[in-house]
Amino acid sequence: MSFGYRGKSLELLNKYGVNVGDKIFVKTNRACFSGILMPRSEIGDDKHIVIKLEDGYNIGLSISSIIDIEKIPQETPSKIIQPSIKSIPNLPNVAIISTGGTIASRIDYRTGAVSPALSAQDLYQSIPELGEIANIRTEILLSLLSENMLPKYWTMMAKSIKNHIEKGVEGIVLTHGTDTMGYTAAALSFSLRNLPIPVILVGSQRSSDRPSSDAYFNLKAAVLTAAKAPFAEVGVLMHSSISDDELIVHRGTRVRKMHTSRRDAFQSINSKPLAKIRNGNIEVYKPYKERGGSLELKADFNDKVVLIKCFPGMPLEIFNFLIERGYRGIVLEGTGLGHAPEYIFPYIKEAIDNGIAVVMTSQCLFGRVNMNVYSTGRILLSMGVIPGEDMLPETALVKLMWVLAQTNDLNEIKKLMLSNIAGEISERSEYGGSIL
Amino acid sequence: MSFGYRGKSLELLNKYGVNVGDKIFVKTNRACFSGILMPRSEIGDDKHIVIKLEDGYNIGLSISSIIDIEKIPQETPSKIIQPSIKSIPNLPNVAIISTGGTIASRIDYRTGAVSPALSAQDLYQSIPELGEIANIRTEILLSLLSENMLPKYWTMMAKSIKNHIEKGVEGIVLTHGTDTMGYTAAALSFSLRNLPIPVILVGSQRSSDRPSSDAYFNLKAAVLTAAKAPFAEVGVLMHSSISDDELIVHRGTRVRKMHTSRRDAFQSINSKPLAKIRNGNIEVYKPYKERGGSLELKADFNDKVVLIKCFPGMPLEIFNFLIERGYRGIVLEGTGLGHAPEYIFPYIKEAIDNGIAVVMTSQCLFGRVNMNVYSTGRILLSMGVIPGEDMLPETALVKLMWVLAQTNDLNEIKKLMLSNIAGEISERSEYGGSIL
Repeated sequence: MSFGYRGKSLELLNKYGVNVGDKIFVKTNRACFSGILMPRSEIGDDKHIVIKLEDGYNIGLSISSIIDIEKIPQETPSKIIQPSIKSIPNLPNVAIISTGGTIASRIDYRTGAVSPALSAQDLYQSIPELGEIANIRTEILLSLLSENMLPKYWTMMAKSIKNHIEKGVEGIVLTHGTDTMGYTAAALSFSLRNLPIPVILVGSQRSSDRPSSDAYFNLKAAVLTAAKAPFAEVGVLMHSSISDDELIVHRGTRVRKMHTSRRDAFQSINSKPLAKIRNGNIEVYKPYKERGGSLELKADFNDKVVLIKCFPGMPLEIFNFLIERGYRGIVLEGTGLGHAPEYIFPYIKEAIDNGIAVVMTSQCLFGRVNMNVYSTGRILLSMGVIPGEDMLPETALVKLMWVLAQTNDLNEIKKLMLSNIAGEISERSEYGGSIL
Repeated sequence: MSFGYRGKSLELLNKYGVNVGDKIFVKTNRACFSGILMPRSEIGDDKHIVIKLEDGYNIGLSISSIIDIEKIPQETPSKIIQPSIKSIPNLPNVAIISTGGTIASRIDYRTGAVSPALSAQDLYQSIPELGEIANIRTEILLSLLSENMLPKYWTMMAKSIKNHIEKGVEGIVLTHGTDTMGYTAAALSFSLRNLPIPVILVGSQRSSDRPSSDAYFNLKAAVLTAAKAPFAEVGVLMHSSISDDELIVHRGTRVRKMHTSRRDAFQSINSKPLAKIRNGNIEVYKPYKERGGSLELKADFNDKVVLIKCFPGMPLEIFNFLIERGYRGIVLEGTGLGHAPEYIFPYIKEAIDNGIAVVMTSQCLFGRVNMNVYSTGRILLSMGVIPGEDMLPETALVKLMWVLAQTNDLNEIKKLMLSNIAGEISERSEYGGSIL
């Protein structure tokens, strides 16, 4: 079995008589490494081999740099380290809730594709140092690729978190696919009112058996943050750059996946993050909600809400379709300061006249909706369109689903949408233009 | 008439007996300024006055800094400078085509709202230095707020540009609202095949009669770029930072408005820009298409194309609606590497079986769609979904409208969508993760 190796890299492995799974010692023109020879995905090139170092980190080595490979005899098969079952009294208690995604996935060596497989338990076993930070309790709640996330699963997660809090934990880590992690973070931010402890969502951009996986560093930092951070908010923890020395915790309502593949794909939009993690230290940014208080769960979502992006030539019939199908809310991702083509105005009005809540956000993502600047914006406001302030379109969508599970009264909806519930709206945009 | 002044600022103006339109000399605790007292918009505060300096730039002055105001008697009403009618032989010829937007707008002092009004001719008259850079020809093609842009107007613009090129110009400036300037830039990039000269789209984030308007600097740099830049591509020229000393020209297919209000709102995504303009110098980034060749116009767009953003709980009935209404193309703004909820897969398949072209892009914006990594992505590919590579969702939408005006053959559509036509796709993402 070549385990994904082919061409020049397979030739090299054959030359030295080593196989995937062997413990090897590799000498390159720059350094020496020892570790387990890992499989490659079939989409990898034939110019590298991948080894798992003893600290659990995978690296790729260019075969052109390799001078020698030696096989290290293994007396006994590497034993699987079991997490300590008896808890250590002085350590904080942290629950890891697994929902799937890349952080809990491995490559299918038959197809070369990645699918979710690892449980929180597996992750814990592969990073035994977690046991030095906290007493860990794990739960496999879901096993989803996060593009398949649904509002009903947000409710399920919020209930599971409540359950763990009632059992007594200092913090919660929720492993999640990165595709929709921002949406879930917003949903939990709204659901978990008066949250007493940190809830840290964490994912990885590369699965744990791929070279340069970020799963290891992200999970370790997430457990640390859940156990020790002074804030009691929902955060998303990921790399802050492509290197491993700094991780960042974004506020759940202000975070967005801004790159398809980079490890530092997540960014805080229109807001500072909650914290940075450097060398095991948590540097927090004020203000934040402090630990303490008693959780109030409001975990229902109305899924008859859509997000519609405005563009030149957008179809106007879509509004009639949404009215007919009984939709209750529309978040528009308008242009610029919160604009939409004037030819759809009568259809927006009809939707509002039918009791549908219409919220305006901006596809610019950064900045704040301001519908008072242009006459067309004022017309939309006068029709009853609710300005989304500096909320992300995705956060406004999740919030409107949450608000519509509580009330159908348009005035009440407007009041809630314009109130800052979970850090999703700031008083004034940090990045606004100023006058001399 | 207080022209938007109220409270403390109105008091101050009354104290010194000056009115909007007066030429005044203002002494502050830091400096002295002379210029015309400008009106304020009704949404302005009461703590500043605004004057237009002699170089055409508007500034706001804090009334707390003002020590004295003097009215300067004006012997004659300021004359309107007419552009020179006879052209100067050694100067390049540049056409300014006006389509509306903030750069061509002024505040309606009755309502306080901004609406498009100024023509290219007006702009030229208010910046007579343009005549030192080039012989200017102006055309008022449209007078739109750009949220009202439609594919048929892209065709109109492309034809107007062809017309000017045939008459003989060294470059073209197109003034445009910023809301949908990125869409238009992409549309013109595809329409103007083998473009022989630069076509520079330019807008402003603040209208020319507001303090710190960027209209003046942007238009001047756009004329310079159109006249002198060595590249013959469609570019978008705007501020590169909040200060006025650097402007940037983005490639038309790679640019996006990324902030609702900042002057440096436009960003190049997944690509370097075409050029920077600093102190009147054009610094270009290679590679680019050089000047020369013979224009080929392909300016038709099929507007039965939609852009749909994927989100948790997105409605599946929308696909049946689009099939019934005769739509020809769907650009999905998927999650992550190009994913969509699996429950919509059968509906996507049905759309493709009905001859609809489905293209996958990513709502991450940065990075590249890669549907080979996860098994679900592979299923979408096998169904015939066309991966959008590292194209912006908006650019993919415009391109699909353009491609569908040329062919209905799904194989041909796929071939064109996967080909780099106007710099919209790069071979390999600049920002991909690397292996040691």
